[in-house]
Amino acid sequence: MAVKNTAQVVIGGKIVTLGGYESQEYLQKVATYMNGKIDELSTLPGYSRLPMETKHTLLSLNISDDYFKAKKLAESLEQDLQQKDQEMYDLKHELVSLRMQIEELKKKQK
Amino acid sequence: MAVKNTAQVVIGGKIVTLGGYESQEYLQKVATYMNGKIDELSTLPGYSRLPMETKHTLLSLNISDDYFKAKKLAESLEQDLQQKDQEMYDLKHELVSLRMQIEELKKKQK
Repeated sequence: MAVKNTAQVVIGGKIVTLGGYESQEYLQKVATYMNGKIDELSTLPGYSRLPMETKHTLLSLNISDDYFKAKKLAESLEQDLQQKDQEMYDLKHELVSLRMQIEELKKKQK
Repeated sequence: MAVKNTAQVVIGGKIVTLGGYESQEYLQKVATYMNGKIDELSTLPGYSRLPMETKHTLLSLNISDDYFKAKKLAESLEQDLQQKDQEMYDLKHELVSLRMQIEELKKKQK
């Protein structure tokens, strides 16, 4: 059975206690990623004067954008894989046909 | 040159004006996704009584989790593709060798 973990992480300078079936390493990785995003946003001109809620919305939007990009990449890789599978099927088919040709030629030689 | 778009979208019941080089459709898709996440979180017991900031942090964490899952999927598909490329290389190599065998056999028959 999966073990429920908790981890105290720092997100945006605040201690957050996370609980879940993910490993502590994973929860830490997620927090590190989020802090990186917050740091990126902090460099935008005028960011520090924005209301707290707008900052949060910007953060969520930014992470959503990363998510959609990763999702799009996965979808395109999935298509590539399907195409490669088709190509491999054709190659294997050709191999079988060549092997049969070789058998035929060998028979004739005997 | 890319055209800068703005779109007014509703996120968590509030109107947010988004600007960027992405299409309005994309910005709308991101907003719809975020609202879906907020709806999901809203069904958690006690969610409505949480402080606004905690709600925002939960949302960002949840989206980050989706991002890491999509990223992991993309990485694993990338590995599959590399493996398939190797397999295809081997198959093509075998094809060449079989074609050469056929040529040899045909020569002998003449």
